Amino acid sequence: MKPAIILVAPQMGENIGAVARAMYNFSLVDLRLVSPRDGWPNQAAYPMASGADYILDKAMVFDSLQEAIADLHYTVASTARKRELSKSILTPRDMAVRLNDHQNSGLKTGIIFGPERSGLENDHIALAHDIVSVPLNPDFQSLNLAQSVLLLGYEWFQKSDAPKREYDIQKDVAAIGDLVFFQERLVSLLEGRGYFPTEEIKPVMIRNLKTIFTKLHLTKQEIQTLHGIIKLLQ
Amino acid sequence: MKPAIILVAPQMGENIGAVARAMYNFSLVDLRLVSPRDGWPNQAAYPMASGADYILDKAMVFDSLQEAIADLHYTVASTARKRELSKSILTPRDMAVRLNDHQNSGLKTGIIFGPERSGLENDHIALAHDIVSVPLNPDFQSLNLAQSVLLLGYEWFQKSDAPKREYDIQKDVAAIGDLVFFQERLVSLLEGRGYFPTEEIKPVMIRNLKTIFTKLHLTKQEIQTLHGIIKLLQ
Repeated sequence: MKPAIILVAPQMGENIGAVARAMYNFSLVDLRLVSPRDGWPNQAAYPMASGADYILDKAMVFDSLQEAIADLHYTVASTARKRELSKSILTPRDMAVRLNDHQNSGLKTGIIFGPERSGLENDHIALAHDIVSVPLNPDFQSLNLAQSVLLLGYEWFQKSDAPKREYDIQKDVAAIGDLVFFQERLVSLLEGRGYFPTEEIKPVMIRNLKTIFTKLHLTKQEIQTLHGIIKLLQ
Repeated sequence: MKPAIILVAPQMGENIGAVARAMYNFSLVDLRLVSPRDGWPNQAAYPMASGADYILDKAMVFDSLQEAIADLHYTVASTARKRELSKSILTPRDMAVRLNDHQNSGLKTGIIFGPERSGLENDHIALAHDIVSVPLNPDFQSLNLAQSVLLLGYEWFQKSDAPKREYDIQKDVAAIGDLVFFQERLVSLLEGRGYFPTEEIKPVMIRNLKTIFTKLHLTKQEIQTLHGIIKLLQ
């Protein structure tokens, strides 16, 4: 279950192609066009799709927004401007949560975008359940159509995949025993060279030294490297 | 406090303009260019900036990445590809948390991007503390330079409003220039001792060494300590 991307009255074929490219980066494949200005299919779209031709090939065309979203259960309208309509304005992240919740309930969803310059009309927005706006610099708001699709697609994708691991962990981190062995070797070497001025200050200096090498999260290979350096410098 | 955006060897002026536009949407203004292919200033950048001319006007140009980030304390390298370097790969959201936490501690940060087609080289990535990758469709990964800046800028901007710190940052982290100075000293010392068996393998060995000390997040005091150790072992 993935949201459809609905473009209302898009103008340039190039922009439709750029939208397809943005969509496919986030595994979105259901593109719906409402009254594209230059008709459809439009060869101008393909070069800008950078290979996401599949999405353009299977894009569906409708005469009205109403028809385009008739099979969907929940839609969000993307708009940059403050509207007088009495709907809450979602952040992209909130939008992603709502899309996901609907999808998880087996419901079909979509995100609606307006024409390049003018954006969605109020009559279009009235058909959507919610409005989403990307928070931007108050002094400079300049997203093109494909960039808006990119950002909202990104948020949906992050939410939908909900990666359990937040980042990759190095696979080859050294065991703590190896680290301690290196630290002890370094300390004893330094001691032999008179590194510690007094017995009182020695424990603190040793602790500081160990802190340096502990917070490295060193790999086995890196510990070997450090051993090599010490050996050479000796 | 906002992250600098550093472009390493950008090719098309148009893309630099598109990056400025993406940046300013999220209130990012500090653009740094390392060896732009067509020189700088470049009039081709302005039409694509859609009015974010201010950022182009005050962009700084450097001969090397090292110089471009010398005044920063924490940097993240943006890359699409799996790397063999032993650094964690952050999600954009994790990156935003780390940038924000450093900034809240009064530290200067930056995000580093590579050339349009080839991306960052490993030697560039070795200078960064962390790597960030945008999670994308495994079957289609096609972000251009400005789109990468847009997505990472977006995540930073969403996070930058958040009041709470998610992890503690050392207050006295050394500036990157100090770290580089130490690394250079170590390398030259090792070179004098015949550490590098062949000229072919030398760049890889140097890169691995630098990676070790970059991911330490060393404080000024700790760099002093390491200088002291080297001096003593010499």
